[in-house]
Amino acid sequence: MKVKFKSKRLTIKEYTDGILDKNRVILSQAITLVESKLTKDNELAEEVINTIIPYAGNSLRIGITGVPGVGKSTFIEAFGKHLTALGKKVAVLTIDPSSQRTKGSILGDKTRMELLANDPDAYVRPSASGSTLGGIHSKTRETILLCEAAGFDVIIIETVGVGQSETSVKGLVDFFLLLMLYNAGDELQGIKRGIMEMADAIAINKVDGDNMRKGQLAKRQYQNALHMFPPNPNGWVPTVVTCSALTNDGVAGIWKVITDYKQQLKENGFFEDNRKQQNLNWMEETIKYHLETDFYEHPEVKEEMKNMRDLVVNEKAPAITVAKQLLALYHKTDANK
Amino acid sequence: MKVKFKSKRLTIKEYTDGILDKNRVILSQAITLVESKLTKDNELAEEVINTIIPYAGNSLRIGITGVPGVGKSTFIEAFGKHLTALGKKVAVLTIDPSSQRTKGSILGDKTRMELLANDPDAYVRPSASGSTLGGIHSKTRETILLCEAAGFDVIIIETVGVGQSETSVKGLVDFFLLLMLYNAGDELQGIKRGIMEMADAIAINKVDGDNMRKGQLAKRQYQNALHMFPPNPNGWVPTVVTCSALTNDGVAGIWKVITDYKQQLKENGFFEDNRKQQNLNWMEETIKYHLETDFYEHPEVKEEMKNMRDLVVNEKAPAITVAKQLLALYHKTDANK
Repeated sequence: MKVKFKSKRLTIKEYTDGILDKNRVILSQAITLVESKLTKDNELAEEVINTIIPYAGNSLRIGITGVPGVGKSTFIEAFGKHLTALGKKVAVLTIDPSSQRTKGSILGDKTRMELLANDPDAYVRPSASGSTLGGIHSKTRETILLCEAAGFDVIIIETVGVGQSETSVKGLVDFFLLLMLYNAGDELQGIKRGIMEMADAIAINKVDGDNMRKGQLAKRQYQNALHMFPPNPNGWVPTVVTCSALTNDGVAGIWKVITDYKQQLKENGFFEDNRKQQNLNWMEETIKYHLETDFYEHPEVKEEMKNMRDLVVNEKAPAITVAKQLLALYHKTDANK
Repeated sequence: MKVKFKSKRLTIKEYTDGILDKNRVILSQAITLVESKLTKDNELAEEVINTIIPYAGNSLRIGITGVPGVGKSTFIEAFGKHLTALGKKVAVLTIDPSSQRTKGSILGDKTRMELLANDPDAYVRPSASGSTLGGIHSKTRETILLCEAAGFDVIIIETVGVGQSETSVKGLVDFFLLLMLYNAGDELQGIKRGIMEMADAIAINKVDGDNMRKGQLAKRQYQNALHMFPPNPNGWVPTVVTCSALTNDGVAGIWKVITDYKQQLKENGFFEDNRKQQNLNWMEETIKYHLETDFYEHPEVKEEMKNMRDLVVNEKAPAITVAKQLLALYHKTDANK
């Protein structure tokens, strides 16, 4: 006999009361609800979000990225502990794009950031990155809102700087920090092009002991490189700092950079502008996601897609003609929805 | 009495025969047809493209960008003349994003590149950038195909490096050249972030006379900056060269860089891979363009859009809920198509 497990769902009131009451268990359950792929769960999740949204938005949202080996978890742990010591409540959401593809995980196991995870003022949660089409955005955005409603002042979103997710994360956060190593150049092999220009600061990690001189050299090199980039419209000049998560050197300095950034952008209005633009993008991306999913999941479109792609790749037919044929196929049977 | 002008249209055979016969007048008429916003013209244009596509694809497609004042037209004229002297047939398509917005034009008047325009082996054509949503892609892509079918070996696409169009142009070309000035840093004010990382080469222009030393310094600075970028997956290392369109110094050198690039990428397969990927992107962008146009031009969606955007911007409602309301509105009346 098969035992069918029914996943336990709370009422909207139980979720929202629990979240506003800073109940960790219920927060976790709400995040699971948000990440669920079931339509019924999605509807419930949306109502929860609608209810808590007036209580969200009051955190500083920080994106942190860097290739495997750069020391992200050790850094985030040291950084998070520094913030909780300052009286902040810190939530860390980790997005691991590899886990869904390979079923293995770059970001590793549950024992990561154990110290921070056991800090009563911190909350560490691996975040499902969802489907490839826009999934990252919606789920992580909603999770941020839940954490904010649960009283966290600093939300850290951690990604591996190797994939598409960084561009998405940039659209979720107020500040984007890139972790690098002192042997400038070497670890660039792993980083995706375009990420460096997105960084509001670069922190060169593991600069301690015998590596001090190398770290200072790398700092100058990155500073010169950033100087050759076009300036940010928001007036912020990206900063390079060195740090050691091991000795805690520079960790306070990074927080200083981030608070300076926040102050400067609050004053010139770009902090709010960025949030507003992010909200609009979120709306547009959601629309795009649903329009495209509807199209690409359409049975007849799906059936023809492989052949059509082959035609286009091998230049047997112009892409625009093929696109229109697929669109005609879609619209023909679209009416019966 | 109003006189109604009927635009003169040829038959498909007249267009295609004329193009394959290298008839400039008919090529120009075909480009006008492709750029037309009339549905009837679009259908005719598509058939023309379908007929000439087997004769297209044999050119080297080069994107050239740089802010106003960097000397793009003078450079392209010198570069184009160099190529025609080598026996190449050169088409120059200029995309001016400003003209449709302000009705003024950054790229200027018809007298630009007069020398090249009068060269029997060259063809200069300003290209309408079309609508904001994907318009740039389709029109310019099709124009490239027409020029290739008309026997041009090198297609140069010129844009002003200040807007969105560069990212699109990168998706149209084999090689992307960024023109800069020797006073490194200053002209960065105008360039959009992200463009530097797209460049396959940077040419520092106006390096002549008293500016030689400054030019060499700028070259070293840009080389160092590019060295700090993550490497290209295709194995190409972006190059920095100096040139003077005035004295013709370095113009031959840039052509050498581009032919080296072509040879290297033909050998490692990335040249063809890039074209195939561009074709697929073209298909996907066309689909996206039509799905989104259909949605955003929907009368009821259009009517609600302003209010809905206000709700989202001012965080009165979560973007995802608003998006779903608009989608419901769209689908409700979608069935009567």
